[in-house]
Amino acid sequence: MKIIESPAELQKETSKYRDQGKKIGFVPTMGFLHEGHEQLIRQAEKQNEIVVLSIFVNPLQFGEGEDLDHYPRDEKHDREVARRLGVDIIFFPTVKSMYPSEPAIKLSVTKRTNVLCGKSRPGHFDGVVTVLAKLFHLCQPSAAYFGMKDAQQVAVVKALVDDLNFPVEIVPVPTVREKDGLAKSSRNVNLSPQEREEAPAIQKALQNGRKMIKNGEKDFQTVKTAVNTFIENNTHGKIEYIELLSYPSLEPVDRPAGKMILATAVKFEKARLIDNLVFDSKGELTIG
Amino acid sequence: MKIIESPAELQKETSKYRDQGKKIGFVPTMGFLHEGHEQLIRQAEKQNEIVVLSIFVNPLQFGEGEDLDHYPRDEKHDREVARRLGVDIIFFPTVKSMYPSEPAIKLSVTKRTNVLCGKSRPGHFDGVVTVLAKLFHLCQPSAAYFGMKDAQQVAVVKALVDDLNFPVEIVPVPTVREKDGLAKSSRNVNLSPQEREEAPAIQKALQNGRKMIKNGEKDFQTVKTAVNTFIENNTHGKIEYIELLSYPSLEPVDRPAGKMILATAVKFEKARLIDNLVFDSKGELTIG
Repeated sequence: MKIIESPAELQKETSKYRDQGKKIGFVPTMGFLHEGHEQLIRQAEKQNEIVVLSIFVNPLQFGEGEDLDHYPRDEKHDREVARRLGVDIIFFPTVKSMYPSEPAIKLSVTKRTNVLCGKSRPGHFDGVVTVLAKLFHLCQPSAAYFGMKDAQQVAVVKALVDDLNFPVEIVPVPTVREKDGLAKSSRNVNLSPQEREEAPAIQKALQNGRKMIKNGEKDFQTVKTAVNTFIENNTHGKIEYIELLSYPSLEPVDRPAGKMILATAVKFEKARLIDNLVFDSKGELTIG
Repeated sequence: MKIIESPAELQKETSKYRDQGKKIGFVPTMGFLHEGHEQLIRQAEKQNEIVVLSIFVNPLQFGEGEDLDHYPRDEKHDREVARRLGVDIIFFPTVKSMYPSEPAIKLSVTKRTNVLCGKSRPGHFDGVVTVLAKLFHLCQPSAAYFGMKDAQQVAVVKALVDDLNFPVEIVPVPTVREKDGLAKSSRNVNLSPQEREEAPAIQKALQNGRKMIKNGEKDFQTVKTAVNTFIENNTHGKIEYIELLSYPSLEPVDRPAGKMILATAVKFEKARLIDNLVFDSKGELTIG
């Protein structure tokens, strides 16, 4: 396993692989790897000859008052996970090497952002697409792997790739869950024992909503109200949003049409949990 | 020679070449090819196994009141030139295929634009970098070729590639000139016989300015005034600007330091001519 810090060195290395006709799979992360990330790496291993994992806490996607300085880091653990899973290259750049000077070129996202979690994080996705454009050029992957836990990020990255014709396939990877259905998250450890017991109700509520659509419910307000009531009746969490949108365009929908996402964010005392389901107009689950 | 209209088909074709380890040289144009373009193609041929020429009049880089609808086109002539020079692929996309829907991702250029010709074309370079980001992803070149006649465009494209780490080398190609020094341009045919006789004074004036710096002149205002006086005394054109800037950062400079550009735009009755020289702090010419 190679550990590369310099962007120029990574690009030289990936150009060499591309010249040999090798397919590169790319897993971009901010480190502190958990089972969700492991799933991304495993899928990249299956579909590519070379797997590049990047670990970079991108300051550009943190807003003011967000937790950039306290973002958890554990490089030793991350290296061990990567080695165990057979990653070929870890890319660990410094902020200075990724952003050596004030750039002349700005990327901004004008759609898919003012809903779900993006609503409360202005500028967040501008930072995400900027760093991904850079990382895609440095890693030169055929495919890049993203967890559906952050479905809005997947939708925005799809827009980046489609609008700018990147030669990269975006592969959405299903959310990894605990046995009781709770989406795995580093934040779950911040739940109290009682909250941890309640938290699977979030996924159950979304599944109930999906089943209502599957069973023919056409009034989406009724669906969202049912999801809301279920979470309220079964948890002490505070619901931040429950949204039912087209996917991946993330536009309001009021009747079954194409792919949709039903998503929620619920704030517990020390942990804010998010979850979602993506399904077709008949209510059948799809990956993303 | 392949003629490809579909962006997806071009990307499939260039991916095939990349998988074979072949180096692709890319010459992006708006068509109506002249000797300047031929020079770009020849240099691309020398340095690459495959040469892709794109011909696309990009609506995004034309402002209101600019001549998008009257931009000259001659596809038959362009195909003949490309065939004669041994181009491997001509990419002739439609506007609809390049911009199928209102994009979610916007690129903007926040430096190097508010000087030289960019000053009077707000938004022009946003359109240039957007189409080039798309074309680079579709063509997957190792190197892309641009004429130094439009030095500001070269500077902005360098910023695009540097800021976003594109795996593409930007190769500046020297301006092709008539024997008397006049920079070749499709617009030269719009000069009256007398204007045509006067026009080489533009290049002479820039060379005189450069030589003043070579000979130790430190006051750049004096240099610009001399260039101005020479053009005024030897032509009936109206000077739009004479600028002396750092290159490629295009920032004001007031003493010799690093690479510099001395550039001018002169408006004749039916033709607006531009020209420039790039040189080092000692006044020695460099390519770009």
